[in-house]
Amino acid sequence: MPNAFYAQSGGVTAVINATAAGVIETAARHRIQIGTVYAGRNGILGALDEALYDTRQLTADALGALRQSPGAAFGSCRYRIPQGDAGDRDLQRIVDVFAAHDIRYCLYNGGGDSADTCLRIARVAEARGLPLQAIHLPKTIDNDLPLTDCCPGFGSAAKFVATAVKEVGYDLAAMQRNSTRVFVLEVLGRNAGWTTAAAALAGDDRSQPPHLLLMPERPLRLDRLMDAIRHCEQTYGYCVLVVSEGLRDQKGRLMAASTSRDAFGHPQLGGVGQRIAADIRQALGLKTHVAVADYLMRSAAHHVSATDQAQAYAVGEAGIEAALDGASNIMISLERRSDEPYVWQTGRRPLDAIANRERPLPAAYISDDGWHITDACRRYLQPLIQGEAPPPYANGLPRYVKLRLQCAPRRLPAVPPR
Amino acid sequence: MPNAFYAQSGGVTAVINATAAGVIETAARHRIQIGTVYAGRNGILGALDEALYDTRQLTADALGALRQSPGAAFGSCRYRIPQGDAGDRDLQRIVDVFAAHDIRYCLYNGGGDSADTCLRIARVAEARGLPLQAIHLPKTIDNDLPLTDCCPGFGSAAKFVATAVKEVGYDLAAMQRNSTRVFVLEVLGRNAGWTTAAAALAGDDRSQPPHLLLMPERPLRLDRLMDAIRHCEQTYGYCVLVVSEGLRDQKGRLMAASTSRDAFGHPQLGGVGQRIAADIRQALGLKTHVAVADYLMRSAAHHVSATDQAQAYAVGEAGIEAALDGASNIMISLERRSDEPYVWQTGRRPLDAIANRERPLPAAYISDDGWHITDACRRYLQPLIQGEAPPPYANGLPRYVKLRLQCAPRRLPAVPPR
Repeated sequence: MPNAFYAQSGGVTAVINATAAGVIETAARHRIQIGTVYAGRNGILGALDEALYDTRQLTADALGALRQSPGAAFGSCRYRIPQGDAGDRDLQRIVDVFAAHDIRYCLYNGGGDSADTCLRIARVAEARGLPLQAIHLPKTIDNDLPLTDCCPGFGSAAKFVATAVKEVGYDLAAMQRNSTRVFVLEVLGRNAGWTTAAAALAGDDRSQPPHLLLMPERPLRLDRLMDAIRHCEQTYGYCVLVVSEGLRDQKGRLMAASTSRDAFGHPQLGGVGQRIAADIRQALGLKTHVAVADYLMRSAAHHVSATDQAQAYAVGEAGIEAALDGASNIMISLERRSDEPYVWQTGRRPLDAIANRERPLPAAYISDDGWHITDACRRYLQPLIQGEAPPPYANGLPRYVKLRLQCAPRRLPAVPPR
Repeated sequence: MPNAFYAQSGGVTAVINATAAGVIETAARHRIQIGTVYAGRNGILGALDEALYDTRQLTADALGALRQSPGAAFGSCRYRIPQGDAGDRDLQRIVDVFAAHDIRYCLYNGGGDSADTCLRIARVAEARGLPLQAIHLPKTIDNDLPLTDCCPGFGSAAKFVATAVKEVGYDLAAMQRNSTRVFVLEVLGRNAGWTTAAAALAGDDRSQPPHLLLMPERPLRLDRLMDAIRHCEQTYGYCVLVVSEGLRDQKGRLMAASTSRDAFGHPQLGGVGQRIAADIRQALGLKTHVAVADYLMRSAAHHVSATDQAQAYAVGEAGIEAALDGASNIMISLERRSDEPYVWQTGRRPLDAIANRERPLPAAYISDDGWHITDACRRYLQPLIQGEAPPPYANGLPRYVKLRLQCAPRRLPAVPPR
């Protein structure tokens, strides 16, 4: 009986394990057609290493807990299969491992790079005449994949950022009279401003925090920023900024790739938030605080969007269903039918139209002055953070699961590590 | 009929408004003895400015929502009454304003500095023969006040930090194979390591994140830190560090007070987390990520400790009860009767034993090697993060209250602004 391969790639999200649960639970409902879901240890490296977790070991309780646990339960990786001979060897090895374990379905859960990996694996299998259906399951807090309404993981990151800005706004409002006047929150999101834009949901209009959004789609002019902060501080008494780690200057250079050096002559790889805060203090003399959300915003399983979690699960479920339908070379997409009420369903999109493409914020989602979002963007974002799905708690902390997993026995000789 | 003055001072906490609700609701149950609670706008500045919010305007609904809202609803301040003539003028003015509004009870909600302010006001009133009872209500996420089991605000900050580290630990475990190996979380807590120590609740033992705690009580030796990180990375595959913003080097200098300059020659005021991460990359060549919790950890009302929230409320309630008992020059304390189950009650402690004193982590709470906490510390900390008290949600975000308040009419001529 044919088996399935499932693996997790790239940075984790607060709900990527919900997709894993969707895959494994749905496959289990089709035991006649699918033997085993083998989960790759550390993404595609698990296929290269023939390190395949047999997910039949997982109890119903473990799968239920998995749906609410952060991280990537099977391990993730940042590994791009190289071009050229080394890449060909990788791809042949993966296909050999799949053949040895009767794997006919490959479900790869990741962003643009993993869509590309998925597609390349399918093509090699096809060239060798092996039956393999390649299905990409989208995932990224950056929300930058094309042809899907949104990416699982984004809604929860958006909820984290909007909540943080809302709460910090109350803090600033209380403190501004003779303390901090400017607050900078640095958020993840390399080339697209979606997570920065999502912070706007914290306020009803531009008089409320966040006052200024610094997105990669709008190269920064520091002089204009200082004018905008001064205006905001004079109008509202304080100013809350959200800045993307991927912010660039007018020459297209990353603001975070600082050229500064510390007292010992070491390069100082400070984040963009701290850098902009230093500029604000220098130019305006206002007391400034900086927070850097970093991994906190992609791991906050205690505060996920129920909508996002449901979509992540549905993508896994739809992946198995598509496999059983005979589909291949597709990405499972999310399709929006209406904004309010938010009606969505899963769909299937051709993988070669997705791999290696990024979707930045459209111009129509950015306000004319470049510092905020439009109503159209708000209508797009608002449904994605809806609903709470708190995990169980024990002893004051969320109770998450750590799976105890054994790899299936090897059927091939090991290859030397890369 | 005598009135009460209540105000909020210093950095906010996620539960300081619960103390406000405790004061206002308890006073309302004693309308025969207390006329009005006047809330100072922006802490003691409200008394200096005669900007006194009349809290009788607040509905029961608003008070209920107040208990769960972040920030400081009446505004806070960082204002230390100076010594010498200017300070005497401030104190006389405050006492004049109190006399003009028949204020007999002064409840000041803050840390060590506000305890001192409270005491000085009481002494001036006494010298002038005015009836004034001064009661300090503790509040600080730093947990550094003496003579109380803990400080309201700390339990919620501790829960935030421990949750973040727990979640980030799952992220790191998933990513470490060929990505980030070291994660640094920088937390608030200037001179005491309580908030850093609280991160230890995320793991059951030292094999789990957080692996290394960098507390102000233990001056940093960078060479020893690098050895410890290397050992941890080799043993567990990755290393999670929590570092206090107030960390100092062997010479007692703040690590955050960087002397480095950027490419333009501006001082680079990076945080200690970023600085240590740069050292780690330089010395060990390991990929490192940094998060800076900053205000997020003191404003996270969506994720408070129910124990902390109950204690914050109880401190407000006990403040009014102590006032009605005729007590003065006291701080309301929290007294622990047992660890497990955690049994606590409020108490009263002499204010002059509290003002301007800091309580660092005792040596018995720090492990011999200086990188972690002892079991005694864990027994102390564990009860303080217990229980969840989520706010109501609307549209995917917590629903907090912004009070609409009017100041009581002035009875004195305005004084020039300071």
